Parts: sequence; C-alpha cells; structure tokens
Amino acid sequence: MRTVDLITKKRDGGELTENEINSLISGYTDGSIPDYQMSAMAMAIFFKGMTPTERANLTMAMVHSGETIDLSAISGIKVDKHSTGGVGDTTTLVLAPLVASIGVPVAKMSGRGLGHTGGTIDKLESVPGFHVEIDNQTFLDLVNQNGLAVIGQSDNLTPADKKLYGLRDVTGTVNSIPLIASSIMSKKIASGADAIVLDVKTGDGAFMKEMSEAEELAACMVDIGNRVGRRTIAVLSDMSQPLGNAIGNALEVREAIDTLKGVGPEDLTELCLTLGSHMAVLSGVASNQEEARRLLEQSIANGHALEKFKTFLTAQGGDASVVDHPERLPTAKYRSEVPAKEAGFVSKIAAENMGLAAMLLGAGRATKESTIDLAVGIVLHKKIGDAVHTGESIATIHSNSESVAEVAAKIYESIRIQEQSLTPPPLLVGEVK
Amino acid sequence: MRTVDLITKKRDGGELTENEINSLISGYTDGSIPDYQMSAMAMAIFFKGMTPTERANLTMAMVHSGETIDLSAISGIKVDKHSTGGVGDTTTLVLAPLVASIGVPVAKMSGRGLGHTGGTIDKLESVPGFHVEIDNQTFLDLVNQNGLAVIGQSDNLTPADKKLYGLRDVTGTVNSIPLIASSIMSKKIASGADAIVLDVKTGDGAFMKEMSEAEELAACMVDIGNRVGRRTIAVLSDMSQPLGNAIGNALEVREAIDTLKGVGPEDLTELCLTLGSHMAVLSGVASNQEEARRLLEQSIANGHALEKFKTFLTAQGGDASVVDHPERLPTAKYRSEVPAKEAGFVSKIAAENMGLAAMLLGAGRATKESTIDLAVGIVLHKKIGDAVHTGESIATIHSNSESVAEVAAKIYESIRIQEQSLTPPPLLVGEVK
Repeated sequence: MRTVDLITKKRDGGELTENEINSLISGYTDGSIPDYQMSAMAMAIFFKGMTPTERANLTMAMVHSGETIDLSAISGIKVDKHSTGGVGDTTTLVLAPLVASIGVPVAKMSGRGLGHTGGTIDKLESVPGFHVEIDNQTFLDLVNQNGLAVIGQSDNLTPADKKLYGLRDVTGTVNSIPLIASSIMSKKIASGADAIVLDVKTGDGAFMKEMSEAEELAACMVDIGNRVGRRTIAVLSDMSQPLGNAIGNALEVREAIDTLKGVGPEDLTELCLTLGSHMAVLSGVASNQEEARRLLEQSIANGHALEKFKTFLTAQGGDASVVDHPERLPTAKYRSEVPAKEAGFVSKIAAENMGLAAMLLGAGRATKESTIDLAVGIVLHKKIGDAVHTGESIATIHSNSESVAEVAAKIYESIRIQEQSLTPPPLLVGEVK
Repeated sequence: MRTVDLITKKRDGGELTENEINSLISGYTDGSIPDYQMSAMAMAIFFKGMTPTERANLTMAMVHSGETIDLSAISGIKVDKHSTGGVGDTTTLVLAPLVASIGVPVAKMSGRGLGHTGGTIDKLESVPGFHVEIDNQTFLDLVNQNGLAVIGQSDNLTPADKKLYGLRDVTGTVNSIPLIASSIMSKKIASGADAIVLDVKTGDGAFMKEMSEAEELAACMVDIGNRVGRRTIAVLSDMSQPLGNAIGNALEVREAIDTLKGVGPEDLTELCLTLGSHMAVLSGVASNQEEARRLLEQSIANGHALEKFKTFLTAQGGDASVVDHPERLPTAKYRSEVPAKEAGFVSKIAAENMGLAAMLLGAGRATKESTIDLAVGIVLHKKIGDAVHTGESIATIHSNSESVAEVAAKIYESIRIQEQSLTPPPLLVGEVK
C-alpha cells in the first residue's frame, strides 16, 4: 500500500479503510511515513472531511499508537470530562471533588498545556505541597480509597496524536473537525475512560467561535465515542464571556472552593451541576438527570463536596487548610481596580481578549518553556447584562508588578457598556447525545 | 512572514502576493521551508487553484531559483517548442531541422526523461557518434553557424521546480493544472526561450486524458507566457492513438528522416507543419501561417530540411550517412509480425498501452537508472479508421529477444477491430493564443 495512493484516494473523496488508516498512523508514528506525506493527507482531510467510520478508525489507531491506561482495577464506570478550552474555565477543579463526593470514580489524567491560564495541574499546584508525581499503583489505590486522584499525563499516551498535532500546527491543518475530534477522543480513550462527558465551548473565547462549528464538533465527538463503545454526551456552553469571575490560577482555586461551598458564581455552578449530572448518570450513580442533580446539590449543601476536596488535596500532599484559609494560597502583591468610565449595562466582555490580559500578567504560558505566576490574574465583578455606575469597579487586577496600565487598557478594550438594558446570553446552548 | 500563514491564506482561497510567492520558493529552494509545509501548500493549491497573477509569479520565482540560459548571443527571436508527452512522439526530431532550414534559430536544451521511449537526446544518440556534451559557447556558436544545436539539460536549471516536482510525485499533488503549467513554463523560460509553441496532447495516451483538462492546461500556459513577456501559442493535438507509426528510439529517428524526406506518416507531417508554422511566425521568419507553411513544405520538397538535419548531426559528431543508409542505425535482431485475428476496421489503438508494450521491449526507462535499448520498438501499419484483412500485419515488433508473446498480447489488448467503417479522430483539436 503506497502512501501516495492513500493521499490521492482521500483527495478524490474516497473512504480510507480501517487497514489503510492503521498503516498510515503506525507508519507515521514509527517514522516510515514522512511528515511531508502526512501534511498533504491532513490538507486533503481538511478539504474532503472523513466519514464517521474513518473518524472512529483514526481515533482508535491513535489510541493504539502508544500506551493505554488500564483503569480496570478501579471498580465502577469511569467517566471522564473534557472541555474544549476557554477563558477562566474552573469546571474541572469543581467537578472532580463534586462528582466523587456522590460516588462517581474520578481517575483524572491532566496536563499543563498552553493557554491564558495554566492547566488543571498548574492550578492545583497553587495549593502548597500538592503534587501529581505519583506512580500508577498509588493513583489507582487513591481512586479506590477516596474516589478521586489526579496524575500527570504520561508521555507515551497517543504519540501519533502528539506528532500529528505538532505537524498540523505548522501546516494550516488545525481547523479540521474530524482531526480535532479524533485528537480529543483518542486522548480520553487512551486515558482509560469508559464514558465521556464533553463540554464544547462556543463564542468569542472558545476555539470554535461559531455555534454551527461547535455543534458539528460535538456531534462528531459523540459519534466517535458511541461507535467505539464509550458512551459520550456533549454539552454546548457559552464562552462569549469568561466563565465564572476569576481568570488566574490561585484565583480560580479560590473560586472553585467558593463554588464547592455553594457561594460560587452562578454560571460556573450551573455548568458544573449540568456536566456533573451527566457524569453521574453515565457512571450509574444516578438513574436520571433530576436525581443526579439533587444528589450533587445536596452534596454541596451538606459539605460533602468540600470535604472530598480536602481529602483529595491531603492525599496528594496538599495543605487542605487553604480551603478554610484561602489567604494561604499564593497571593499577588498588588490589587488595582478597573473603574467603569461610564454608566449603563455591560453588553460585552470579550473573553479571548480578557484571557490575553491575564497572560500579560503572567498567568499563562505562551510556550512550553514559560513559567507561570500562580498568584496573578483578574477577577471580574460584572457579567454581561449587569448594571454598572460610573466609577464602579468592573474588575480587580491581581499583579506582582506595580504598573498595570497595559493590562487595564486591554480590559477596557474588552468591555462594552451600553445605555439600554439587555438580556444576558444563555449559558447552556445545546446538548448532543 | 510565517509559512503557515501563507498555507492558511491559500487554503482559505486567498491570493498570494508576488513577495509571498518569492519567499516561499526561495525558502523551499534553500531548505529553510521544509517539505512538509510545501506539500500542504501544494495540496491547498490542488483544491483552491491559483489566480493568473499567482501562476505567473510562481513561474518566474522558479525560473529565478537557479541558472538561466542567456541566448542573447544568438541573433533573432528564439522560439522553443514543448510537447506535453505522449506515445511515439517524434515531433522534436522533425521540427528542429525543419524550422532551422527556413531560418528559425533552434537552441534546444533537452532531457532524457522517463517514459515509454527515451527523450529527444536518447533518440538522437541512436545516430553513431552523436553527442550533446558540448560547452555553452560551442552550443551558441553552432546555433549561430548552422541555425540548430541540441545540448543536455543543465542540472542547475529551475532547482525549485525539480524539488517541488519530486515532492508532488509522492504527495498526490501532481494533477494540479497551475502547478503543471508553471513547471513546464519555468523550464522553457529558464532555457532562454523568447517565445514558446506548446503542443498539448489529449486523449488516452496523453497526460491530460480529457479534452477539457487539456484546454485548461493550454490556456493556463499561454496566459503565463504572455503575462511574463514570452509570446506563447498552444496547439491541442490528439493522442488517442500513437502519433506517427514508430514507437522506439532508432525507429523514431528513421521515421523522422522519412518525414523530412516528405514520405513520413501523414499525422506526424501535419502536426510538424502546424507547429513549425507557429514557430516561424513567432520568430518573424514568416508573416503569417500560410506563408510559413509554404516555406516549410518547400524546404521538405527541395531537400533543405533533410540537408539541415545532416549538417546538425555532423556538427555534433554524428554519422550523417544514416540519413541515406538508415540500416546503419541500431537495428533489432528479430522482427515479428502481429497479424489481425479478424477483418474489419481499426476502431481503437490504445496509445498508453502501446507505450507499455514498447517499454516491455526495453525502449523506455522505468527509473532514472534503467538503460534503454535504442534498437527495439514497434512499428504500426494501421491507424484508426483503416481497413484490415484477417491475417494482415497490424504491427511489426522489433526485438532483441526471440520471445515476444507478452508484447504481442499487449498489442492485441490495445487494438480493437470493428465491422463498420468509421471516421478517424481529427489530429488537430484546438488552438489557444
């Protein structure tokens, strides 16, 4: 089977067989198929798409390109969650202890990643002493014991996806829905998930800016999951403004603690209850959404969710006293308010630009080598639709340098205030099963 | 300027600027732009095409990627001819001395190439002693003195095209009309042509099997030529059956000699007169097609064309006595007839398959390393539309091995005979100026 014939077949709209996809991915992983053929193939896929069968086969070929995590030592149905990225997304920090507290086993493999703020592991490392450098056996034992553990991502997971992603990044082939979908799904499946809940963001701060694209991506991932025997559900959520109020690592941990206490931002709480309910139903802990939601709300109200978070932090070396004393989390030297220049109603909080403002403070990573300042970030005091008076603070900048003029300018640039009142955009915009 | 941005621009249907194309081609030539980005770009071009301005800029960027031949020491307008390949195509061997004999300067750079039979140089090397290893000054002097010389292709000509062609061959991006057109035109322009006559073949034995594709390619090349100041004309000619009767190197030299004597096959003669007339007009030797054709016909009739061929062969070390004694050309050991199995009218002579039959004999090169047997080949005795009796020879196989069963089978496979008489396909099917 010559690679050029596979490229030509795809270019002309043909369907690659399972065997063809397997040999493409294994050849690319072992280096016998060069980058220049794979990039031509990726561009052909960009234009011609992939059939549902091809996407499922590609996903499984990438799963089998490297190590797969065996979670069978953990009893119960292991449900994983994935969010497609966004700004100020604190859902994992809340969801993991929340669903674990009602009996959904959470065996989370997480990364650091690039972005406006750190990955889940970076955020958790705001808690003094907390670490994810645990061996596989300890990881499995902790999940069986506490219902929850987080481990750093193995380097050997889906090497084909890593290599292909790096190639797509420099060859104009990132924005291909079948390639995005199989990349995400292969990582979740290789990490051992039996079932998957997807949180697909849409709007200005999301990777998929258009609702139609987000829907297509969600449908594509759900189809892949269900075809390869992993029950998958996707929730489409709004990212036209940042989720919650905090953008920054330790600031998001504080916000997660508030949410687990029942006093967190309304949108973050709602999204966590929705995603958590799906996870509870998929894992078999609840028989329907209503029951699941009731269990989760109870767990917040009676303090079980917060208790689970403390147990989890302690088990991985963290100082759980931060939960009651958030001032023990990394704290920035300076706080600067951003006062509204006019009165009215907030009509826009450009999420991506707000994320860039947080990066200017040092909250995120531009390259793999960048170091993150865990203490810095932005806390918003207004959401779209809120009334604001002239001079009232819209946001607080937490910084370690005195001058924040550039950051403040970026925040002003992101926010629009209008005279007329308006209805805020809905948080939950769709669901794909 | 990041290469990935150029790829994305083309992918999304944008037009690359002259500056962008220049940096793409110079970066690819010097290796700073890797193959994997260029192959993604080629695939994006496959799907999105190129605007007329882009095609012209790409052509000139490839011309300037290496050496360009300066023919200014030759007086007059230097007109080059290019045929897009086919089976049994002897036009260059006839045309070069024919147009030179009426005063069109022919400074021909030619290659060996891959294919069913050898390139023009291979064919000429059938003439004992003939060689193209002459230096540039000798080459220019010979053209000034005799009006005609042939030199081997410089290795430094259009290196970007060479590299890109090799890449396209293994990445499913050969069949892109703007890339084919700019590849052909860049080589002609770098070889020093002031004006260009193109012979674009269409039909089974041609690279462009469909008339619509051949027309598009012709229009594309003519547009490029005219945009970059090289007057260009394209003739579309039929390649649904082999051109002329001979397929094989020395056999085609014999056929060229016959044609220069005025006793060659009708189709080959007609195509040479048509292409030659365009060359004569473009070079200014004749003021219109009719006058040019009359000059060419006269030159055949009065022996000047044949005389020019002899002078040319002698000047480059060849034994010109082959013209009067064709038996001095390499001759195969065996001749085997291929008798018709039924009576009727020839309705098909599948050109590509006939070419493959000649390759089986050893007349062509499958890889650069293959050696060619100059003596072997096939001579057809029938063309489409001709009547044939049972047992009458359709073709003679010239071979150096006794057993030709496989070759004969391939010839039978290529030829169809039907009961009803039919009109042969027209040779000249279009023209683009």
